[in-house]
Amino acid sequence: MPQEIRAWGTTAKDRPLAPLTIPRRDPGPNDVVIDVEFCGVCHSDIHQARDEWGGSLFPMVPGHEIVGRVTALGASATKHTIGSRVGVGCFVDSCRRCGQCGLGFEQFCAEGMALTYNGTEMDRKTPTFGGYSKRIVVDQAYVLRVPESLDPAAAAPLLCAGITTYSPLREWNVKKGDRVGVVGLGGLGHMGVKLARSMGADVVVLSTSPSKEEDARRLGATDFVVTKDAAQMKRAKGLDLILDTVAANHSFDPFLRLLRPRGALVLVGAPNEAIPVAPFALIQGNRRLAGSSIGGIAETQEMLDHCAAHGIVSDIETIAIDQINEAYERVLKSDVRYRFVIDLASLAQ
Amino acid sequence: MPQEIRAWGTTAKDRPLAPLTIPRRDPGPNDVVIDVEFCGVCHSDIHQARDEWGGSLFPMVPGHEIVGRVTALGASATKHTIGSRVGVGCFVDSCRRCGQCGLGFEQFCAEGMALTYNGTEMDRKTPTFGGYSKRIVVDQAYVLRVPESLDPAAAAPLLCAGITTYSPLREWNVKKGDRVGVVGLGGLGHMGVKLARSMGADVVVLSTSPSKEEDARRLGATDFVVTKDAAQMKRAKGLDLILDTVAANHSFDPFLRLLRPRGALVLVGAPNEAIPVAPFALIQGNRRLAGSSIGGIAETQEMLDHCAAHGIVSDIETIAIDQINEAYERVLKSDVRYRFVIDLASLAQ
Repeated sequence: MPQEIRAWGTTAKDRPLAPLTIPRRDPGPNDVVIDVEFCGVCHSDIHQARDEWGGSLFPMVPGHEIVGRVTALGASATKHTIGSRVGVGCFVDSCRRCGQCGLGFEQFCAEGMALTYNGTEMDRKTPTFGGYSKRIVVDQAYVLRVPESLDPAAAAPLLCAGITTYSPLREWNVKKGDRVGVVGLGGLGHMGVKLARSMGADVVVLSTSPSKEEDARRLGATDFVVTKDAAQMKRAKGLDLILDTVAANHSFDPFLRLLRPRGALVLVGAPNEAIPVAPFALIQGNRRLAGSSIGGIAETQEMLDHCAAHGIVSDIETIAIDQINEAYERVLKSDVRYRFVIDLASLAQ
Repeated sequence: MPQEIRAWGTTAKDRPLAPLTIPRRDPGPNDVVIDVEFCGVCHSDIHQARDEWGGSLFPMVPGHEIVGRVTALGASATKHTIGSRVGVGCFVDSCRRCGQCGLGFEQFCAEGMALTYNGTEMDRKTPTFGGYSKRIVVDQAYVLRVPESLDPAAAAPLLCAGITTYSPLREWNVKKGDRVGVVGLGGLGHMGVKLARSMGADVVVLSTSPSKEEDARRLGATDFVVTKDAAQMKRAKGLDLILDTVAANHSFDPFLRLLRPRGALVLVGAPNEAIPVAPFALIQGNRRLAGSSIGGIAETQEMLDHCAAHGIVSDIETIAIDQINEAYERVLKSDVRYRFVIDLASLAQ
């Protein structure tokens, strides 16, 4: 008998979020039952709740930056223990058989991963609901261990913003002494700065807003460049890697020109429109324009352990669940430093 | 006293190529004097002779796919021996001090490499002249050994078309069992097919021209896809790497969609215009769009040795020097399979 659980979500793309009741399955042998303590608010929650990418499934309960405590376990769910702190990120299952799953890239599963919300379980029927809820039930293989040393509220955004920036920094082998650029200082960008710095890189924040310099340096940036200032841009030349976290449409060419030979500009923000790219900007110096999308389960665990070792969490503003609609409006105005996190204690049992 | 050498070149962008006389320096201590036997005709020769990229220096003697015999050596030029067969590619010097030169990426020299023609020596004064000439004098460190087992005429295009396709295949770790796509079957594309095949990859040629299938398969392609045919394109899905050799403006998105997760589309042809790229096509599956430009000296030598080990040369049509203007017109119509090579014996002493 599935249990009815309190949540917040929406029943249509043009409605505000409001209280809902959703079913959570009884735990199967491999399942972990998690009482949600905190859930981060990702910009993609808004895109999907408002069906801006198309194909949204309603009713929808957003939230894929989930931290909580294990309250029950299936008989075979030995990977976690009752009472321990765990996390759930952007997906809750995948086929486990394809080459990509085998390589630890479950996010590229040939059958398509089971998204944490706005998707279905691998049966392709049962809808999934996210972390704006009191409880979630997830197969143990897709549940992460969240080190107790991390503040649980501030750790929640690591499950999406953290892994989204950590994964490309690792994939492109950022190491001590490298010079890494971070374009945009928002939810993703501020994690990019902290993580690149923790890997020993010098970090240059590239921003349109001079007002962000103080914060950039506080977060660990060793340099700050106003992108409209040609002289400052020149100073940034020779970067080994650039993380571009800006979702608004913008030109990539000024950033490609800042890369050293064989350097990469990695897109983690996703402009909607096709952006013109000059082939010569890539051919001269063997430069690369790449995309990066979250990370696999093993890499997400590695990221959490790395954050614990380096004392890294997100800078957050905690809200009660009934502030979520206001928080969405503030996210759209970039009026948050740097991530809203819902305290689910505010949601009545 | 520099010697006066017979050559063919042009004195202005709107003139045909014609006989010229150019100076070649007396060999310095580290110099190799090479009697040119063969010189390949690269599409970029035409772009530069006609000043289509801007900044062309006249008079100009094109040619950077040079094979010949050593006829004299400076006192310290012990890397080569008189009578041996050697080659010269796209550049004849670099600063030798910067980080890129130190890494063997002389083509990305911080001071700018000395181009074989349409450039200057590192003094930034003395003009350089290319291989459409009887003789060339080059510092030993920038002279390649051309294995005697290779047909010298058919080996000439290896110095540009060969290394331009070999370098990205190595950089992106092509290995046995990989599936490599080659877009366009011209001077670069036909070398890409042969080289990828020699590394053990299955090679899919992607072309707008169904008429090229027979030749593609003869060159080693294991599959051939007409890019206008959606069903055939679907068959090509999951490629590990795609070499895009087409210089005409064209969309990259259909090719990005053929890549496996983390696969790369590498541009070696250079469309003039900026090409719109959908960020989501890169972000989904961590796909990469990269450029690649020739290769360094050590890698070019490695490529020549690899070609000797695998019996690989270019498919060529040999011409006399006085056929060069006609050959240019035929290159522009893609009417060559697959590279013109000038037999410099046709140029009077």
